[in-house]
Amino acid sequence: MQLKDLKAGVRFTGKALLKEVQIKRKKDGDLFAHLQIQDGHHLNHMMVWKVTEQQGIQLSSAKGKVLAIKDADVNPFNDQLQLTVNDMKNIKVVERQNDDKSTWSGTYLVHAPVSSKVMRDYFQKQLKEIKKVYPEFDIIINYIMKHYAHDFLAHPAAKSMHHSFLGGLAYHEYRMLKDLNRLQNPKIGKPLYHHVDINMDRAAIILHDIGKTKEMGTAENPDYTILGTLSSHITICFDWIKEACDQNGIDSHQESIELLRHIILAHHGRKEWGSPVVPATEDAMLVHLIDLMDSHMEMFEEAYVDQDANTLGNRNFGLQNVTPFKKPENPDGSLKRD
Amino acid sequence: MQLKDLKAGVRFTGKALLKEVQIKRKKDGDLFAHLQIQDGHHLNHMMVWKVTEQQGIQLSSAKGKVLAIKDADVNPFNDQLQLTVNDMKNIKVVERQNDDKSTWSGTYLVHAPVSSKVMRDYFQKQLKEIKKVYPEFDIIINYIMKHYAHDFLAHPAAKSMHHSFLGGLAYHEYRMLKDLNRLQNPKIGKPLYHHVDINMDRAAIILHDIGKTKEMGTAENPDYTILGTLSSHITICFDWIKEACDQNGIDSHQESIELLRHIILAHHGRKEWGSPVVPATEDAMLVHLIDLMDSHMEMFEEAYVDQDANTLGNRNFGLQNVTPFKKPENPDGSLKRD
Amino acid sequence: MQLKDLKAGVRFTGKALLKEVQIKRKKDGDLFAHLQIQDGHHLNHMMVWKVTEQQGIQLSSAKGKVLAIKDADVNPFNDQLQLTVNDMKNIKVVERQNDDKSTWSGTYLVHAPVSSKVMRDYFQKQLKEIKKVYPEFDIIINYIMKHYAHDFLAHPAAKSMHHSFLGGLAYHEYRMLKDLNRLQNPKIGKPLYHHVDINMDRAAIILHDIGKTKEMGTAENPDYTILGTLSSHITICFDWIKEACDQNGIDSHQESIELLRHIILAHHGRKEWGSPVVPATEDAMLVHLIDLMDSHMEMFEEAYVDQDANTLGNRNFGLQNVTPFKKPENPDGSLKRD
Amino acid sequence: MQLKDLKAGVRFTGKALLKEVQIKRKKDGDLFAHLQIQDGHHLNHMMVWKVTEQQGIQLSSAKGKVLAIKDADVNPFNDQLQLTVNDMKNIKVVERQNDDKSTWSGTYLVHAPVSSKVMRDYFQKQLKEIKKVYPEFDIIINYIMKHYAHDFLAHPAAKSMHHSFLGGLAYHEYRMLKDLNRLQNPKIGKPLYHHVDINMDRAAIILHDIGKTKEMGTAENPDYTILGTLSSHITICFDWIKEACDQNGIDSHQESIELLRHIILAHHGRKEWGSPVVPATEDAMLVHLIDLMDSHMEMFEEAYVDQDANTLGNRNFGLQNVTPFKKPENPDGSLKRD
Amino acid sequence: MQLKDLKAGVRFTGKALLKEVQIKRKKDGDLFAHLQIQDGHHLNHMMVWKVTEQQGIQLSSAKGKVLAIKDADVNPFNDQLQLTVNDMKNIKVVERQNDDKSTWSGTYLVHAPVSSKVMRDYFQKQLKEIKKVYPEFDIIINYIMKHYAHDFLAHPAAKSMHHSFLGGLAYHEYRMLKDLNRLQNPKIGKPLYHHVDINMDRAAIILHDIGKTKEMGTAENPDYTILGTLSSHITICFDWIKEACDQNGIDSHQESIELLRHIILAHHGRKEWGSPVVPATEDAMLVHLIDLMDSHMEMFEEAYVDQDANTLGNRNFGLQNVTPFKKPENPDGSLKRD
Amino acid sequence: MQLKDLKAGVRFTGKALLKEVQIKRKKDGDLFAHLQIQDGHHLNHMMVWKVTEQQGIQLSSAKGKVLAIKDADVNPFNDQLQLTVNDMKNIKVVERQNDDKSTWSGTYLVHAPVSSKVMRDYFQKQLKEIKKVYPEFDIIINYIMKHYAHDFLAHPAAKSMHHSFLGGLAYHEYRMLKDLNRLQNPKIGKPLYHHVDINMDRAAIILHDIGKTKEMGTAENPDYTILGTLSSHITICFDWIKEACDQNGIDSHQESIELLRHIILAHHGRKEWGSPVVPATEDAMLVHLIDLMDSHMEMFEEAYVDQDANTLGNRNFGLQNVTPFKKPENPDGSLKRD
Repeated sequence: MQLKDLKAGVRFTGKALLKEVQIKRKKDGDLFAHLQIQDGHHLNHMMVWKVTEQQGIQLSSAKGKVLAIKDADVNPFNDQLQLTVNDMKNIKVVERQNDDKSTWSGTYLVHAPVSSKVMRDYFQKQLKEIKKVYPEFDIIINYIMKHYAHDFLAHPAAKSMHHSFLGGLAYHEYRMLKDLNRLQNPKIGKPLYHHVDINMDRAAIILHDIGKTKEMGTAENPDYTILGTLSSHITICFDWIKEACDQNGIDSHQESIELLRHIILAHHGRKEWGSPVVPATEDAMLVHLIDLMDSHMEMFEEAYVDQDANTLGNRNFGLQNVTPFKKPENPDGSLKRD
Repeated sequence: MQLKDLKAGVRFTGKALLKEVQIKRKKDGDLFAHLQIQDGHHLNHMMVWKVTEQQGIQLSSAKGKVLAIKDADVNPFNDQLQLTVNDMKNIKVVERQNDDKSTWSGTYLVHAPVSSKVMRDYFQKQLKEIKKVYPEFDIIINYIMKHYAHDFLAHPAAKSMHHSFLGGLAYHEYRMLKDLNRLQNPKIGKPLYHHVDINMDRAAIILHDIGKTKEMGTAENPDYTILGTLSSHITICFDWIKEACDQNGIDSHQESIELLRHIILAHHGRKEWGSPVVPATEDAMLVHLIDLMDSHMEMFEEAYVDQDANTLGNRNFGLQNVTPFKKPENPDGSLKRD
Repeated sequence: MQLKDLKAGVRFTGKALLKEVQIKRKKDGDLFAHLQIQDGHHLNHMMVWKVTEQQGIQLSSAKGKVLAIKDADVNPFNDQLQLTVNDMKNIKVVERQNDDKSTWSGTYLVHAPVSSKVMRDYFQKQLKEIKKVYPEFDIIINYIMKHYAHDFLAHPAAKSMHHSFLGGLAYHEYRMLKDLNRLQNPKIGKPLYHHVDINMDRAAIILHDIGKTKEMGTAENPDYTILGTLSSHITICFDWIKEACDQNGIDSHQESIELLRHIILAHHGRKEWGSPVVPATEDAMLVHLIDLMDSHMEMFEEAYVDQDANTLGNRNFGLQNVTPFKKPENPDGSLKRD
Repeated sequence: MQLKDLKAGVRFTGKALLKEVQIKRKKDGDLFAHLQIQDGHHLNHMMVWKVTEQQGIQLSSAKGKVLAIKDADVNPFNDQLQLTVNDMKNIKVVERQNDDKSTWSGTYLVHAPVSSKVMRDYFQKQLKEIKKVYPEFDIIINYIMKHYAHDFLAHPAAKSMHHSFLGGLAYHEYRMLKDLNRLQNPKIGKPLYHHVDINMDRAAIILHDIGKTKEMGTAENPDYTILGTLSSHITICFDWIKEACDQNGIDSHQESIELLRHIILAHHGRKEWGSPVVPATEDAMLVHLIDLMDSHMEMFEEAYVDQDANTLGNRNFGLQNVTPFKKPENPDGSLKRD
Repeated sequence: MQLKDLKAGVRFTGKALLKEVQIKRKKDGDLFAHLQIQDGHHLNHMMVWKVTEQQGIQLSSAKGKVLAIKDADVNPFNDQLQLTVNDMKNIKVVERQNDDKSTWSGTYLVHAPVSSKVMRDYFQKQLKEIKKVYPEFDIIINYIMKHYAHDFLAHPAAKSMHHSFLGGLAYHEYRMLKDLNRLQNPKIGKPLYHHVDINMDRAAIILHDIGKTKEMGTAENPDYTILGTLSSHITICFDWIKEACDQNGIDSHQESIELLRHIILAHHGRKEWGSPVVPATEDAMLVHLIDLMDSHMEMFEEAYVDQDANTLGNRNFGLQNVTPFKKPENPDGSLKRD
Repeated sequence: MQLKDLKAGVRFTGKALLKEVQIKRKKDGDLFAHLQIQDGHHLNHMMVWKVTEQQGIQLSSAKGKVLAIKDADVNPFNDQLQLTVNDMKNIKVVERQNDDKSTWSGTYLVHAPVSSKVMRDYFQKQLKEIKKVYPEFDIIINYIMKHYAHDFLAHPAAKSMHHSFLGGLAYHEYRMLKDLNRLQNPKIGKPLYHHVDINMDRAAIILHDIGKTKEMGTAENPDYTILGTLSSHITICFDWIKEACDQNGIDSHQESIELLRHIILAHHGRKEWGSPVVPATEDAMLVHLIDLMDSHMEMFEEAYVDQDANTLGNRNFGLQNVTPFKKPENPDGSLKRD
């Protein structure tokens, strides 16, 4: 049984990832636990009305693991469905065994709307194009993927607000590549902007946020790391490119490398947003603007997920505190007319 | 003879638009005139070493008219070619006669890189699509074009910095429509963003800056007007839509109109940039971002025009004071390697 | 019995509006309710120690209705008096019956310190003056009042911070009109500022915030509406004026209308505060400044209501986080000297 | 003959104040002088086509003195009338003799639209009211006027942008007092704001900018002084009040003095505008807002002086770079209708 | 027994200061108390599971007093040790008797890492140096210390974030004086900056924050006072200097006093940070920069106190929301290498 | 003869560097040249009243070379002394021959107040200390100095505003090292801040601005380079450290290197000032604050150079537009008393 099948009054038995734990004390000195659990699509609150101190400690350290839950009551509570069990008898922490990581996370984590395989294939196709013009970029990207960013396809793009799900980072870059190709790939039509170097920008898009695989922890716990605090994904990637050049006999002072690294440095667009330099080439400006576009569109798409048509959503910090309006849609994207 | 054919030492005879005039006094009390003249591609400085007060006044009032120039000397001066004549004998102010406006401005004003006809046809095609889903938008756009924005195809998009040339406004919207279609037109590929209403946004793009035809004067003198100071192109267009509805029996309170007008109001993206509301729908956000993209790409393209490859250009106020770098390009847009 | 008569230890029986409801769960699984109730002058917290799920749902949907409360205990709690009942036996939700709205809200909502009648009469008097010089303004204001702003006299001026009470909007404009008349009405003295057009500004003051009747919900629930999110009270009013002109045969392009609409657009004074244009006429500047004055004075007056003399109040977000100081006053407004 | 009577082609003979001097060199090594001269209403440019080095030095040191000019040519130049003389034979520097200062400056400096006498009488009347409630304030104001601010009535209120004319400071405070009295004087009507202490605020208005008499130099040369750079008019006045108390046996720690000094400190309203504290009392807020109002209204009035009706003026730095629009007016301040 | 000796499972008996009190209600109507208690080094949470209303009121008014606690249980709770007692039998409020204040606060308040005596001696030594060059400054400082700032050595420097402990103010100035002497005292080496007047700056450092003794309450309750809200420590000190001059026959208009007062006014460095003027002398700039340095270094030192080596700390509002990294250190301050 | 010896009326013969050239046209069509020339201490304007086009071109290309000037007239002009010659007969462009660069620039460029040798020795001494604790830092610094920053000792620290003279960069770091040592070197006294790693910070100071040797051109022409525009001195240095590690077998991922690079990245202190990360360690904060201190003190020192005691200087853009006040000084740095 999955969380999306919850119904008030029907008991739940199934597995879910333990996302958050709070141990609280009742007036009589006893402890109870307030959990948040999720599977690939939903997140719910769950109460365990009585835990010992021992069990409290055990639960706290099980964050990021999976719980097997038996016969939990399901009650409506403040417009949501909440699970409750009396004590830990109905709950067991499941150790991840020989199920490989992607299966496991595919089940319990919210993940990108496109599969890893589709994204991997698309990246490969882009690399093939890039390689024709800039063989050095192909070498650099492969070096970084192999040595540093092996969990690239499973990484979130942000700690919150946009693409904060499994594979969010890859999905963000996947759509940015699509944006770029639509605007500039001659196979689709005459390129719209004249000084744009499509293969330069394809490489820059693939690399621009890749430092986040070190700046932030895993998808299960996407906090900033020590390295991410001392450096940032921008300078981490800037650094990896240097290393990739040196380790592969590429002259890091050649113009193509300088220009690629400039795009990485400038992709946040403004100094106050963390770029040590502002875009000085049309390529750097375009990559910055496509990044801005995809992240803002994604924030609307995420806001709309749990929102009813014809209503205002919650105030959204990333969108200047707007309460997004969701319109009813026809299949062709136009307004639904009753 | 055109200004692009100027050579030091070779006398110039030809016509050019009088862009700027300054009358100055020499130490002996005599007056001379410092002119700026241009044709469709170039702008040059020109000195008339002796003018009477009468002629000075006549020249001052000829701003925006065309001069017929005979046998002007051409000398290098501070890295540019400058024209000089001794007095007004070699200069005649030409009245615009029966040459139609577009011919005239086509000759003497810098104009968009795409012809009016191409742009007009493209807008017509878009309108046909819009009309299928939102016939009311087609009526509104035609009403506004007919009653207020007849010089739309010949208008600059800005007083300076981006698209400040003849047809700049139309060209800006033409490329924004192309951006939108590339990203979202199902004929080109699967739409990249899911809640986007392409025909809503096509209409919004066509309308978003159309109020500039009243906010600013003509291409020859693109200063802000009184109405543009009291209102702004954003609220001018907001108003025209209302009028178009009321004059054509369209209910301005229906959802499609409210949403279209919201995009117009929100297209500057932030209150400090002149939008009275921030984008509250994914459509409004997308139109804002495409506007941002095209105007910034255009600023780079304009900066690159007179810049040599492998050099830094002038500090660019619209681009955060960067000195843009122009790279040498191959035909495929990639870096030229020597 | 009214809330202002509450005393610790004396049981309360009376009626009060239900302003806020939270249903919470106790450790034994039972629910209790935390209410906020108010009448025309006071707001108090109230606990219902045991509610069924059914009752919880019923209470939640009674927000904005009136409760008849019987024999509630009154206890001091954290410096305030709190009401408690054991269960719902002592509480009944009262349906609004044949009591007209103003009576009802007069009893249960905090309302402006001046009666609706006084304010209505004053507005009428102003309109009579306006009409002598600008008959078109009189028509416009009457059209808007009739078609859109019928609850104008009962609307709050803001969701929080200033004039957020019943009739707050009318009271704000009433005092702004008084400010204007004091400064500029020749009957009171020589006008203080020379280019001010008093009847233009009277009309602008009456209209400047009138769009709030649509931007925000009712006084009982002053949240932003969908239309208020897509447009704003500034552009809503700008639009109504257009409609009023068109529906009444007034030329909306005549100078008086353009200038009136400019004041509406510019009355927030700065773009970052939501005005699409900044004040370009002395009239627009004056209306902006009187608006600024009245709203800031009101924030002090509201802060002082529950504050003791010779103390600092709470940090006030609308007043740059100051902790206002309230001085002891003599009847003539001067400092009280002991 | 006065500067307002200048006509092209008619020679000018008369007196004017020398406001600015620039000595420049012609190509043949000779010097000429470019002057700016003014009387009570106008400012004109004037050229002296030949000066010796000796005369150049003499002219440079005559800034702020009066020139007697004989038979200067008057020519139109760049839309203005310019005076020219061949050499210094036609110019004589006039020493100020036994004409008292006010006569002299009344003739040659732009001055407030209300006479010193009218303003002095009005201040006296206010002081009489203040004294009834706060005799200590009367003593303080008289002390400061006598010891520090004797040229108060002849001081400009600002180096540029608002009230930058002779008597500008007094005129600014005169109109602020009128604003306050209109709003709050019970003789005029019921006070509009309830916690306002009119005599406290009258005193604060008289004092708020009085430190400018030391912060800036004289009306003839309103530059910042050393003391004005090390301190500011805000803290200079704060200090004078202390001294006035101590020299007159007034306890500077009593509440009336603390509150008065708070208004002085807070009257710029925001820290970034130079107030070390933000307004914490309703009185401080009101004085700040009246100050804001009068200075902004004055900027419009000054902008309108040389502007034609129905036109846009110059970009105005103090008014957020707006180009003010001046409407045609009827005697009653309403729009003129043709 | 002291709080630093707490162990889970071992009962605590000892004394601690009552820092915060919250009285809360349990579901059965009974009250319990949530306390925060501290001694010279630690702060802990403490629960009293049952209090009467009487006892609740008593506890609330005991904030800032000392509790004698007997046999409290110590349990781990959310990574901290928490104390619990069943009721008030185990707690007694201790009146401060004939123990002098410094002993008492030395025991129960967190205090500066350097003793009062050491700091007092150091200040005396500085004053001796200052007096040689500026005897008037010695008089001023002594006057202020005697009349206003007697609790200077026991005052915190800030309500939160830096030096918010007993003696924090003195410790801040003590280290700033050390900074200054290191950089500029000729006995230590050639002064590093050439226009710096060391004795001027010594005096300014001692005085710059001394107004905080009146701006904020005592170390036990460091809230802003009424005077601190109406004025600020900057203008309070500016004022005291004036008074000290006048009371001691020092001319407050002499240059040394003007320059000293300028440093006081300008020491926050920017208007938006509360300085009415910006630094106009090298001395003012240096004192501002040393103030900036010491307060920021202190914030790191305070953040590091409870942080483990090789970890990131909590987001720190005063340090631009950074999560400080604490490195493992060798005795010489260098990195510890394992 | 040197420029400092210029006297009005005495002819000048000597050598000076040609800093700026403008060729202008006189009314009779002839050209003249307006030069700016300087030697080690002064800069003066110079006119050549007649040049041919040939000579104009020659002069323009001689910028940065040295002119031998014979018998130039010296005249006072606008408070400065100006040189004039009639034509090019009196001027000869001097080719730099076998005089080594430092001699040449020592003569003609404004240079740091401390000699290269003194600074070099001091850096060597610091390196010796650093090496004891962090031998890897010594290797890195030497690698960078050798491969990239050989002109470090002759570089300006900024294009304008602070340390913009020959050796300015070295001098800035030299004084920052002195600041650090004064505060933290145990040989001078007990270190003032407890978590500071002096050798870490010594290395960071030497490296922090060293990227400017590539970010900007030479001292003679300190414009931003292409690399400086694409990257910035911050990321250039960040990169060099990586390369130095890799080329010398140092593990760039060890903690000492990560922390050193963090200081480089964070030394501008805020993102809007160009640091991609904010200071996260006390070391990074200290280096940032010392950098801030030295650059601001230097701006005052540079402002004071040409300023008279007891006057206000020019508005200083780098110092928040203050007009610095320069006080008269005694030898002990205290105020001079007359």
